[in-house]
Amino acid sequence: MCRWLAYSGSPVSLEELLYKPANSLVMQSKHSRLGVETTNGDGFGVGWYGTRQTPGLFRSTEPAWHDVNLRELCAQASSERVFAHIRASTGSAVQQTNCHPFRHEDWLWMHNGAIRGFPTIKRDLALAVEPELYPEILGSTDSELFFYLALSFGLTEDVRAAVAAAVEFVERTGRRHGIEDPMQMTIATTDGETTWAFRYSSEGNSRSLFHSTDIETLQAQYPDNDVLKGLSRESRIVVSEPLGDLYGAWQEIPESTCILVRGAEAEILPFTPTAA
Amino acid sequence: MCRWLAYSGSPVSLEELLYKPANSLVMQSKHSRLGVETTNGDGFGVGWYGTRQTPGLFRSTEPAWHDVNLRELCAQASSERVFAHIRASTGSAVQQTNCHPFRHEDWLWMHNGAIRGFPTIKRDLALAVEPELYPEILGSTDSELFFYLALSFGLTEDVRAAVAAAVEFVERTGRRHGIEDPMQMTIATTDGETTWAFRYSSEGNSRSLFHSTDIETLQAQYPDNDVLKGLSRESRIVVSEPLGDLYGAWQEIPESTCILVRGAEAEILPFTPTAA
Amino acid sequence: MCRWLAYSGSPVSLEELLYKPANSLVMQSKHSRLGVETTNGDGFGVGWYGTRQTPGLFRSTEPAWHDVNLRELCAQASSERVFAHIRASTGSAVQQTNCHPFRHEDWLWMHNGAIRGFPTIKRDLALAVEPELYPEILGSTDSELFFYLALSFGLTEDVRAAVAAAVEFVERTGRRHGIEDPMQMTIATTDGETTWAFRYSSEGNSRSLFHSTDIETLQAQYPDNDVLKGLSRESRIVVSEPLGDLYGAWQEIPESTCILVRGAEAEILPFTPTAA
Amino acid sequence: MCRWLAYSGSPVSLEELLYKPANSLVMQSKHSRLGVETTNGDGFGVGWYGTRQTPGLFRSTEPAWHDVNLRELCAQASSERVFAHIRASTGSAVQQTNCHPFRHEDWLWMHNGAIRGFPTIKRDLALAVEPELYPEILGSTDSELFFYLALSFGLTEDVRAAVAAAVEFVERTGRRHGIEDPMQMTIATTDGETTWAFRYSSEGNSRSLFHSTDIETLQAQYPDNDVLKGLSRESRIVVSEPLGDLYGAWQEIPESTCILVRGAEAEILPFTPTAA
Repeated sequence: MCRWLAYSGSPVSLEELLYKPANSLVMQSKHSRLGVETTNGDGFGVGWYGTRQTPGLFRSTEPAWHDVNLRELCAQASSERVFAHIRASTGSAVQQTNCHPFRHEDWLWMHNGAIRGFPTIKRDLALAVEPELYPEILGSTDSELFFYLALSFGLTEDVRAAVAAAVEFVERTGRRHGIEDPMQMTIATTDGETTWAFRYSSEGNSRSLFHSTDIETLQAQYPDNDVLKGLSRESRIVVSEPLGDLYGAWQEIPESTCILVRGAEAEILPFTPTAA
Repeated sequence: MCRWLAYSGSPVSLEELLYKPANSLVMQSKHSRLGVETTNGDGFGVGWYGTRQTPGLFRSTEPAWHDVNLRELCAQASSERVFAHIRASTGSAVQQTNCHPFRHEDWLWMHNGAIRGFPTIKRDLALAVEPELYPEILGSTDSELFFYLALSFGLTEDVRAAVAAAVEFVERTGRRHGIEDPMQMTIATTDGETTWAFRYSSEGNSRSLFHSTDIETLQAQYPDNDVLKGLSRESRIVVSEPLGDLYGAWQEIPESTCILVRGAEAEILPFTPTAA
Repeated sequence: MCRWLAYSGSPVSLEELLYKPANSLVMQSKHSRLGVETTNGDGFGVGWYGTRQTPGLFRSTEPAWHDVNLRELCAQASSERVFAHIRASTGSAVQQTNCHPFRHEDWLWMHNGAIRGFPTIKRDLALAVEPELYPEILGSTDSELFFYLALSFGLTEDVRAAVAAAVEFVERTGRRHGIEDPMQMTIATTDGETTWAFRYSSEGNSRSLFHSTDIETLQAQYPDNDVLKGLSRESRIVVSEPLGDLYGAWQEIPESTCILVRGAEAEILPFTPTAA
Repeated sequence: MCRWLAYSGSPVSLEELLYKPANSLVMQSKHSRLGVETTNGDGFGVGWYGTRQTPGLFRSTEPAWHDVNLRELCAQASSERVFAHIRASTGSAVQQTNCHPFRHEDWLWMHNGAIRGFPTIKRDLALAVEPELYPEILGSTDSELFFYLALSFGLTEDVRAAVAAAVEFVERTGRRHGIEDPMQMTIATTDGETTWAFRYSSEGNSRSLFHSTDIETLQAQYPDNDVLKGLSRESRIVVSEPLGDLYGAWQEIPESTCILVRGAEAEILPFTPTAA
């Protein structure tokens, strides 16, 4: 179990985004409200797009709640696109290369959930990764390997199709090894322009996922809220569990769904695993 | 809030002691059952007496639950006297020198609780430390400074009197600065032969503290329990909250009490702060 | 022994500043050219002034040369004023709170050298720190305590006089305890507008210190040099040992000297310890 | 470039072994005498056989020279068989799972050197690992993958033949990808009873390797030497570069050689890569 947040919109202070809300992502590292595992203290990561095309990546194995450098970075940096993740390891080593988000060129990827029976099918999945991408795999998690599978299935060309193919391949491989319900996931990925988020699980009982509702309405409703102030109307947050206490501010994303956020537009699409 | 455990008795595997019980100390680092703060993920420490007179000390800023080296050490080491502590910082930096137990020559010391208003009175407390001990203070916590105060008040000569004097000094200093109820503590200290544990707070509402009841009775009651097997009759555990599910195995130590464990003998004494 | 760098001028990429030169500060963490100790692998720190008045601070106990997060931060951040430091511990614990630069409000401070006999005189020095500043001391080094002494002697009012008074106090205290030549230092401090750097030692044989010569002349001489490109004429670097191979680019700062850099102006002044 | 040491013989204090000699392995982490890279500050590891059949493993990403826990562990532990390694990364991430020694069941493995062109041939090498061993690979180094190749080629049955087959496979695979001289290595492996060490490189210019000469002769020559005292006549050290200043104490192991140490016997055998 992990928790993550994907922000896009007008430049936001990372401190405002990750520390200030009542149920902020950093607070969720110690005590999250939803989910089986409430402590997400096995490392964290932040990816943010700054002045360069390639996003910055700050990942650490410390719990987010006590990491001084994370606090310092967040106080200084602001960004139009932020991916943040707090980790609860389901067995893989607690090391920087296993912290999300993962980066490939200008792309970021993060995952909440697990590939069941991963040790059993890891080799088969690894073999399906494009040989030229293979040496880029630096860690040992299911989540990173899933990213490289999606890249191998054409993520940079057609995100939804590539994720559908990667999930179908994981499910097929898993079932061949006798694993029921191999995939459990919410994932987010971005090229720096568009964010795609997915909620899916083989058993149809997926980790929670929410997106923020229209910011202007919220600003009118909560004129004193610091998180909302200064955000432009195209600002959007997709997140594992609601931040803050403005529960009306969040809409649950349904099972088997892909949400695509580009500028002020959010498109909700069905998601089904499909062979490549 | 922290959690700690003090073991003495026949040589015990650190793995059996710290990992195996149902509500083991390492498990309490993620989810403790008692206390306000249930996550104790701001570092940990183990002190154990081996073949040398000076105990070994393994302290780390990582959460105990995911520290691989702690697991390895515990698999290899066994000891007749073990102090173990998991930390939930109340504000001091998360750094090795702030992890308990603290060591001075052959002595160990660990603390659960806090000195209230510590930033306000820290300087006055530090001035009361013996000048030759002063440079040994390596961290920044109230707990370590409290240890050096007790040492300055004669801990190595008369433990109960020195702790009583140190507590009285902290309370007097705190009150002079307008701090109500300055002291909240359970502490344990040992010279390698005897363990002293204290439960006390200025407001008379102290952190929980338990000691194990007679091992032989327990072994008879629970013949299949792995933690109990192999322990000799002089084995004793003093601990912040019960390990395992054998609740009959534990007796609460009353408020304002000092318990002294030497060999098979456990002596329960009243504890009152007293000017030196 | 440590190494440090203080930059001020037109906004510079931290990556260009700290990684690109041939003998860059990050490279010096593994192999510095000058000085007794050539490995400075006991942590590092970067302080940089961004959009807020309070500078950001990124400090870690890892060797700078292999710290991935430092590399990432430097790739994203640029600043008009950067303090960077790599540490070779002379005995104090390797912990974040012992890494330079140290920060107090908007001020930064870093030090290369040592206070000799520090354990002997630490308590006397600590007592001279203003009581309201005392609880801000978080680490255990001579360098941080020296900073708080200078603050206590009025650093924020008159930098040169405060440092002179702090050095005089350290020397007087040291000599009273029979320590010859108590002070060895190059230090840099800034309020975000002006940088002051000092080179001094009690024995008149101080750690090396250099400042960059006129940038425009250098740019004319080395039109292809990446470090120089894009720097405006008021850009200045003060540094423990020359960066890059443009040795003409650097002037040694004499013994017992203070250099003050404000905008394009660099003023060289004598420095003598003086009682407050 | 790395440095390593393999000890077997009478129980030795890890502190005596790793800290006390003049050019001790821990000292070599900061300044080694031989080799291109003199700083080995990218982590370390110690494997030691204690009371259990499975050896203990203590690995950390910190430089060995400043790791407090290593010092503590070494002060407490003694062992009849110790593997110790200090790392200078040639590119792989600095993380615990990349630190040597690597462990599989009761076996340990450590490596100095590199597989050239590793990113290019990593996938082909990984495919040659037995599927049931594959998920045990936790890190990303050439050294660990080399271990799993050797295991796949039968290390636990016939060590010399399995290493010969693994090296031949790496060389063949490398050359197929146009890599000249793919293998550079000294390695050590043990099952807890026998230690095998190899010195080999494709170009016939291998990293240095030494073994200690007869302990009894040495003890007679250097009656006051602390490292030698208390060692029994079957004690042997194989090491990347001589410890201490007793240069007569060490014999260089020739190129293309395997040395096998079991009890007091050391057997020197030729080593040639050979197809499985």
